[in-house]
Amino acid sequence: MELRELALAASTRSQTPVNERDVERLLAAILSSEDVWRIMDLSDVPVMAACELLRELHRTEWLEWNDGRIWLTSRGREKCRALGVQPPPELRCPSCRGSGVELGPMACVAQTFSELAAGRPQALQEFDQGFVDEASVLSRAAFMWSKADVAGREVLVLGDDDLLSLALALTKAPKRLVALDIDPRIVSFLRETATEQGLPLEVAQHDLRHPLPLELIPSFHTFVCDPTESLRGFLAFAWRGMSALRGPGCSGYLGLTRREASLTKWRHIQEELLQSGAVITDLLHDFHSYENWTYFETMVAWDKLPTRRVPGAGEQWYRSALIRLELLEHPHCPQEELQGDMFDDAEAATT
Amino acid sequence: MELRELALAASTRSQTPVNERDVERLLAAILSSEDVWRIMDLSDVPVMAACELLRELHRTEWLEWNDGRIWLTSRGREKCRALGVQPPPELRCPSCRGSGVELGPMACVAQTFSELAAGRPQALQEFDQGFVDEASVLSRAAFMWSKADVAGREVLVLGDDDLLSLALALTKAPKRLVALDIDPRIVSFLRETATEQGLPLEVAQHDLRHPLPLELIPSFHTFVCDPTESLRGFLAFAWRGMSALRGPGCSGYLGLTRREASLTKWRHIQEELLQSGAVITDLLHDFHSYENWTYFETMVAWDKLPTRRVPGAGEQWYRSALIRLELLEHPHCPQEELQGDMFDDAEAATT
Repeated sequence: MELRELALAASTRSQTPVNERDVERLLAAILSSEDVWRIMDLSDVPVMAACELLRELHRTEWLEWNDGRIWLTSRGREKCRALGVQPPPELRCPSCRGSGVELGPMACVAQTFSELAAGRPQALQEFDQGFVDEASVLSRAAFMWSKADVAGREVLVLGDDDLLSLALALTKAPKRLVALDIDPRIVSFLRETATEQGLPLEVAQHDLRHPLPLELIPSFHTFVCDPTESLRGFLAFAWRGMSALRGPGCSGYLGLTRREASLTKWRHIQEELLQSGAVITDLLHDFHSYENWTYFETMVAWDKLPTRRVPGAGEQWYRSALIRLELLEHPHCPQEELQGDMFDDAEAATT
Repeated sequence: MELRELALAASTRSQTPVNERDVERLLAAILSSEDVWRIMDLSDVPVMAACELLRELHRTEWLEWNDGRIWLTSRGREKCRALGVQPPPELRCPSCRGSGVELGPMACVAQTFSELAAGRPQALQEFDQGFVDEASVLSRAAFMWSKADVAGREVLVLGDDDLLSLALALTKAPKRLVALDIDPRIVSFLRETATEQGLPLEVAQHDLRHPLPLELIPSFHTFVCDPTESLRGFLAFAWRGMSALRGPGCSGYLGLTRREASLTKWRHIQEELLQSGAVITDLLHDFHSYENWTYFETMVAWDKLPTRRVPGAGEQWYRSALIRLELLEHPHCPQEELQGDMFDDAEAATT
């Protein structure tokens, strides 16, 4: 009951639904690590709710904090013991980083991809950017390839600060490869790199708040997108991707975090994807690990953190799941202009 | 268009919805292997629909068969080339068999589990049995443990010819562990083994067509079930599990195949799970590999196969996905008696 009340208070304050299990997850994470970012990573509690939960647990004298470190008081430890909260073992397979796939043919392009990616534009807060690490890009491409969604296929990448399109282009396996991005720096970088290297990659600037250009619809077998995570933003981007697919049997890949999306939001998203004509064929937790970005101190969660420090380059904590869907019918999903602030969502932490 | 017509014909004949992508998957599998069981495995097309698709492809002279082998004719190869069908690389991580997890603490009980499992009862068709291999059991237990669903938890295993409860009991990590099974041989085996080994495991006989005994509801943190795969059977078993959970934040694990469930059925199941108050947190393709059973020649698919042979012990082909769900509210799901033949489903192949 105590955990439920803590969850309710944090849910109300953060406008982000969490339950007693989330409190347990947060406590288990604090039993594993004192570092605020490691705790955010391990707990899988949405950051905005975790910040409020930490304050509630501080008010009830379960924990203390200082300089980006958080630890349980003896009262907090006693409570954890009584509740049976214990940190689970981390069992991510070290060979595949939990992705379940080996790189196979992607291993042949890894070195070149790394060299080319070294010249990439840095992440900008304006476009809600933040890119996954190279290993995640290669694993995602390998996963897609193993599902027969790459070789001989027409593939559309919607938003590509990750440079997935570059990794796929290096394989020369797709029949056609198109990348769209809102950021002129990304568009130029991809286009120039493709030209210099003679890679089969079409690049165009496009703002996903607008429906896709008509000439792209519906011509693809596969789309990939890491949508912004406000509920309506996520769905709008996912629907853009679905609208670009030829029809039944075509597939889509979406990234979705636990950092900025509660499981309640996950459920809404899953319901909408199913209603739009798709089935979820795969859902892999923490498939992607992000590089830390440079705008930590201006992101909305910064002021909410009870104790702060900027994480180092190697201290990854922001991860996302990989969702693969497959269309079972022609998609029925709205293609309206996305009006107003598409980042506006109580669960948003990094915008 | 040609693929669509083939899919439509096979869907109608088998009463199992498949689409043009399924035809591609089947052709890609035949490009990879001539063996009928390996083709069933690689294609992920429901067996009953695959049998009809093979006949359609034979009628249109794309393939030939003999003695459990299937191969493309030159016409079929030409069609595949024109359609761009090519087999995808198999990239399952060899370290974790694609599960994404290492065994961690489960490695300590692997040897004992294997010794105890050697005395298990063999699979019976009467109870739709067929058990996953020991590596799959250990990976599933490790996966559950890593999600904080095992240690200190009350865990309910609904139907356990896999002997998962035995593997979990050997760890002594759960707070309480209960296994129910319809088969008196399984009940006796689990009960006697637990007694002999001094393991904390409660075992009872129960037929899942009936609601769970009231004294079990709602007292568990975690349930596990590999339901029979008729749509109403699957949902009834899943709902039994959900009814045994304490409430929000509790989790369930379900096995679901592509062998006896079309993606259309998958979508219905996913919709129902979401509507019942759950979110899907993980969905791992081919997580479990089954040992071949002894009743091949009496299963319903046997007569439908265009060419047959009994697979050898090491030739695994029947696999299932692992679904993890988490409750976000108290579940609302019917708990009626399951009347009539619960195996009655056009997509059922092994009953």
